[in-house]
This record gives sequence, structure tokens and C-alpha cells, in this order.
Amino acid sequence: MSGQSGKEETSDDTAVRERLLHEALILFNTKGYAATSVREIVAAAGVSKPTLYYYFASKKGIYLELMHSTMATFQAAVEQLVVPQGTARQRLLRFATGVFDLFVEHIAVVRLIYAIYLGPPQETPDFRHQQFYDLMLRVVSGLVEEGISTGEFRPVPVDDLTWTIISCMNTVMEEQLCNQPPRVDRAALERLLGLVLAGISCRGAACPAL
Amino acid sequence: MSGQSGKEETSDDTAVRERLLHEALILFNTKGYAATSVREIVAAAGVSKPTLYYYFASKKGIYLELMHSTMATFQAAVEQLVVPQGTARQRLLRFATGVFDLFVEHIAVVRLIYAIYLGPPQETPDFRHQQFYDLMLRVVSGLVEEGISTGEFRPVPVDDLTWTIISCMNTVMEEQLCNQPPRVDRAALERLLGLVLAGISCRGAACPAL
Repeated sequence: MSGQSGKEETSDDTAVRERLLHEALILFNTKGYAATSVREIVAAAGVSKPTLYYYFASKKGIYLELMHSTMATFQAAVEQLVVPQGTARQRLLRFATGVFDLFVEHIAVVRLIYAIYLGPPQETPDFRHQQFYDLMLRVVSGLVEEGISTGEFRPVPVDDLTWTIISCMNTVMEEQLCNQPPRVDRAALERLLGLVLAGISCRGAACPAL
Repeated sequence: MSGQSGKEETSDDTAVRERLLHEALILFNTKGYAATSVREIVAAAGVSKPTLYYYFASKKGIYLELMHSTMATFQAAVEQLVVPQGTARQRLLRFATGVFDLFVEHIAVVRLIYAIYLGPPQETPDFRHQQFYDLMLRVVSGLVEEGISTGEFRPVPVDDLTWTIISCMNTVMEEQLCNQPPRVDRAALERLLGLVLAGISCRGAACPAL
């Protein structure tokens, strides 16, 4: 054991942790969080109850780890997506499609978030699920503000354009969750946003002089 | 008993039925559909089990009655909202705000629909919850098509404009479900749609000649 930390994680530890998280996520999505027992999780992961308690302390601990790691992944990905390259329009499209890709890649955990957030109030672990949405709102709002300040977009109210863009992202992403096959996809999201921004861009005689 | 129908409903019947539906809805939203028992419903409504079975046959019967009556209310309201008066823009705004009002008025049953639709697959009664969404899509699509065919809107792809409008409706309505106080409201929905349609309307030199 290292002298620096009280506990050092081996690859075995990581494999067991990952297996518990993976099986718990499947059970939460199939049976619901409240209806899933610790016994079922350890049986599915092929470990003992003390092993689960050692790594996560409780069922709630597993849930919170799923949320925190997903939020960390999301934050890191968002940082990658908001590099200051291109026009505000290009950056908005890059951000929206990037978030769409993340949503699809992590659709199992997204499904759980939706079920907990919109489902009946269970003995739900204390986690601000809105953080995901709030971060999207902040990034889009910043890009809209920038597009308006540089004159790339017409001077419409920042909040209104932000929510219009978020609406398109939100609805197209939710469609991936609910409908197989989805009636709108990644390419449709780009078209919807193109349509919204076409009405906003300062081009053509109807726009105020830059 | 009337000679015309085998069963005539009295105001007493109606009151008992309504009470059962009302209490079941509260329980489904509080505990979840699967976790709610017939025993709890009849206790909350102050009736006996046979009374519930007489009117609805089962817990599933109550759920289906909630869905069917909500769908009937929605269809009737939609018919009222699509009267052919005004421009396509005016009719779209009337429809969107009218659906918003219905959503808020029936928010308890909407909450149940979301929980069942997005929650874990339970022994869920067989009902096509998408009917609500499909009806909205059909109406908006029809109004968009009309606006384009009369030259009121630019000739953008009907599906793209339809989904952009539906996105705004969907997201602003969901906000009422999740956030107290909601960050976007009925007035915001009108502004968002105004913004989308401003980019679509055939006004200004940038538009093709009508």
C-alpha cells in the first residue's frame, strides 16, 4: 500500500467497481431504482454484499457514483466542445451535435436520470440532476451572447434564442430515448438549428447595418 | 333502470367513479403505478374493493380510464383550437398556447404519463401514450404546410419547421413539470415561436417574391 493514500486502487478493484456500476444501472433501468435491492445487484455482479458495501457503502452510493462520474464525463466533454474556433453559429452546431453524441453514447444512464427526475418521488438520492441541463443552458447562452455582441446574430433577446436552441436539442435528444426508430436524428438537429439561426443571422437587406 | 341501456349512470355513480380516479391518480404519482395497490386506492376513496372492480374491473382499468378520458379531452380541445381563423402564424400561436394551457390544467395526469412513458418498463397497461404527441405533430404539420402553401412562410422543409415548433412547445411545457418556478412560461413560449417564425415569414427583401 502506498504511503500517500490510505487506499490504492488496483485493476481488480476497478473491474469489480465497474461491474457493480454496470449491473446496478441495468437493474435500475429495468426494475426501477426503488424496487432494486442490494441483493440483486451483488448477485448480478457476482460479488458478495460486503464487497458492494466496501466500494460504495450502499445502493445510494452506487447511484451517486453513477451520477457523479457521468457529470464529470459531461463537464470534461463540454470543455472539449467549447474551443473558441469558428463562428458562433459553427460553435453552436458543434456543441449541440457533440452533446447529442454524448447523450446517445450514455443513453443508459440518461434513461435512469429521466426516470428518477420525472418519476414518482422515491427515496431518491440527493443529487441535483438539473446540473446537466444548467451546464447546457450556460454554454448555449454564452455562445448566443457572443454571436449577438459580434453582430453575427440579430440583437434578439439572449434568453429567448438560448431556449429556442435548447428546445431543439432537448426534443431531438428525448426522441432518441423514446422512439425506435427516432423520427428526428442528429442530422435533423443540425437542420432545425440551421433553420432557427437562418432567421437570426445578420444577412440580407432585412438586417440592421453591422 | 332505463329500458334502453343495461346500465344507467346516476350522479352517485359519477361521484364514486370520479373519487376513485382522483385518488388513484394521486397514488400513482406519489408511489408509482406498480407500487400502488387496489387496497390503497379503495382506502383513499373510502369505498370497498368490489366497488372499484364494479366500475373499473382492475387497477389497470383505472389507469386506462385516466388515459382514455384525457385523450378524449385533448382531442376535443384540439378541435376547438384549430378553427380556421387568422393567419397560419396566428393559428400556430393559438394552438401552441392552447396546448400549453391544457398541459398545465391537467398537469397531474401529464406527470403520470411522463413517469410511465420514461420510467422502467413496469406491468404497464397497454396504451399508446404517443397519441398525444402524434396529434400535436399532425396539427402543427398541417398549419406549417398551409403557411408555406399560401406563401405566408418561406418554403422551408415542412418536417423541419414542424419539429422546431414542437421542440419549443415540448421544452417549455416540460419545464412546468420539473422546475418550480419554471424558467420559461406561456409568454416565453409565444416569444420563442415568434422568434422561430420571424425567421420564416416572407417579409423583407431577403424573401422570394410572393
